[in-house]
Amino acid sequence: MKKIKFRASSHYVPEKIVTNDDLAQIMDTSDEWIQKRTGIKQRHISQGENTADLSVKVALDLLAKSGLSAKEIDLIIVATMSPEAYTPSTAALVQGEIGASKAFAFDISAACSGYIYALEMASAYLASGQAKRVMVLGGEVLSKIIDWQDRATAVLFGDGAGGAILEIDSDGTSAFLASDLATYGQDGQSLTAGITPALTSFPANGEHKFSSFAMDGHAVYSFATREVPKSIQRACDKAQLAVSDIDYFVLHQANARIIKSVAKKMQLPIEKFPINIDRYGNTSAASEPILFDELVQAGKIKPGSLVALSGFGGGLTVGTQIIRY
Amino acid sequence: MKKIKFRASSHYVPEKIVTNDDLAQIMDTSDEWIQKRTGIKQRHISQGENTADLSVKVALDLLAKSGLSAKEIDLIIVATMSPEAYTPSTAALVQGEIGASKAFAFDISAACSGYIYALEMASAYLASGQAKRVMVLGGEVLSKIIDWQDRATAVLFGDGAGGAILEIDSDGTSAFLASDLATYGQDGQSLTAGITPALTSFPANGEHKFSSFAMDGHAVYSFATREVPKSIQRACDKAQLAVSDIDYFVLHQANARIIKSVAKKMQLPIEKFPINIDRYGNTSAASEPILFDELVQAGKIKPGSLVALSGFGGGLTVGTQIIRY
Repeated sequence: MKKIKFRASSHYVPEKIVTNDDLAQIMDTSDEWIQKRTGIKQRHISQGENTADLSVKVALDLLAKSGLSAKEIDLIIVATMSPEAYTPSTAALVQGEIGASKAFAFDISAACSGYIYALEMASAYLASGQAKRVMVLGGEVLSKIIDWQDRATAVLFGDGAGGAILEIDSDGTSAFLASDLATYGQDGQSLTAGITPALTSFPANGEHKFSSFAMDGHAVYSFATREVPKSIQRACDKAQLAVSDIDYFVLHQANARIIKSVAKKMQLPIEKFPINIDRYGNTSAASEPILFDELVQAGKIKPGSLVALSGFGGGLTVGTQIIRY
Repeated sequence: MKKIKFRASSHYVPEKIVTNDDLAQIMDTSDEWIQKRTGIKQRHISQGENTADLSVKVALDLLAKSGLSAKEIDLIIVATMSPEAYTPSTAALVQGEIGASKAFAFDISAACSGYIYALEMASAYLASGQAKRVMVLGGEVLSKIIDWQDRATAVLFGDGAGGAILEIDSDGTSAFLASDLATYGQDGQSLTAGITPALTSFPANGEHKFSSFAMDGHAVYSFATREVPKSIQRACDKAQLAVSDIDYFVLHQANARIIKSVAKKMQLPIEKFPINIDRYGNTSAASEPILFDELVQAGKIKPGSLVALSGFGGGLTVGTQIIRY
């Protein structure tokens, strides 16, 4: 098996900030209510930039940071639940825009676990020896899926993108120590977005609509606080590590209360569970790489750090990667 | 590297058949015009069954044919450009419905090359030793994306699903001999569907629409007839096979004229390029596994057969898998 390392990490969020007070102007909510229940103070909302635009910003920064040319990338995966289109894929648009002429490209749809699933495919593909460098991105423009009249869901989400370049490291040890991925499709209706109904009669008119976010918040909260600790434990067991060996738990930022509950259940210090949902809201597949890159940039995640990256949400899905950076 | 074999193959199409004459009743077209330009005589159109429903039919038949229980599947990938929803993924819905409680699941978006890309990920994941059995499906309900007032695109597409179970074969030789995958995102606008624009102002109303198929037919035709022979040649070169060694070329069924042109350019007998677009239309990611399974069921593809599976289309993307069945 080939050894894999992180070559570069990056993130990008659109410029416009929408605060809780801004939302309180257009719906019956308040800063206090949102903060108390979710930990969110503000989110970045795209104004015209679509999913590929955010992802291209990250891709170009990854190339700049790594000193690689686009032609040195063999595969581009974008994890997204708010793609630019059904076709072309967001990854294809990134590939074309940055000129990664030797890469093939596709999107992965696994909602808030999408980045963890994409890392699983990227690391397996590198390990199989069929590629030298893979760009893995999580990109979301959830603002275009949100029903902005629905205060139950509109306050939760934000837009952004993040990612990394992974590459074969023939000398070093592998960054990917172990993983745990699980899906609970029988509970899929707890969190839905973008449902496109089939025709019931033929022919139908030419107008196509899809559903906004709909969520059974209690079910998703129970699922996450029950399954995330188990997934992290299973992944640590496979890596032959104690959970207390992990330096940072980079959890999907769905709700600050979920993260605090996971830390408490696992009897681990909350300081090991960094939180940035206050600034970004829930950015789905983008949340793990955004937080990961912030910790790298802050010098907290550094060479040798042990990190548990954990995603959970729509599907329902859960996934953990144990990484030595 | 682990050896991989096909354990089972299956396909399913919805019951309702829409003929060219049926279409001529609702738009300005004719059976003669459609057949001459595309080779299509009819297509199956879903009436209420969505993408996961078609995919579940295939998944259950794969389990029945293989004698496996759902719990023996480790990973389910659905290639689709017409998913049931942005979340849950179509694969998660299949996973939940068939009770594949030990599998994780996600969708891949690479349009008409999606099944080839999914096979690439599935075979690499099996080769890496992290799974024993992967279910790979291509499922499409394109009828829900079509603008049924647009005669230029509405006549082209159909609904269906197909797929296979791949598994580790510790004794045998590997079914996956070589592959070639490429993406041309700079030409992505030649074939688009399901574009969801970003908000341009905030807040916006709660109604979400996406675009229907739009295609520059000439550009896609040129692309396919130019790039597919090259992709097949590159994949055969990697497998150290002559193209004349291949028993069957299972090409994406986008247009009978494209397939005939590829056979001619490669100076190969058209008999090696089976065509079923006359009965199904273009079913995107489902077209390769539907045709593959028909050939298996007919006893044409049999143990030892050399098959080139080739997809091409939205992205733009192209991909070839060289398989010894």
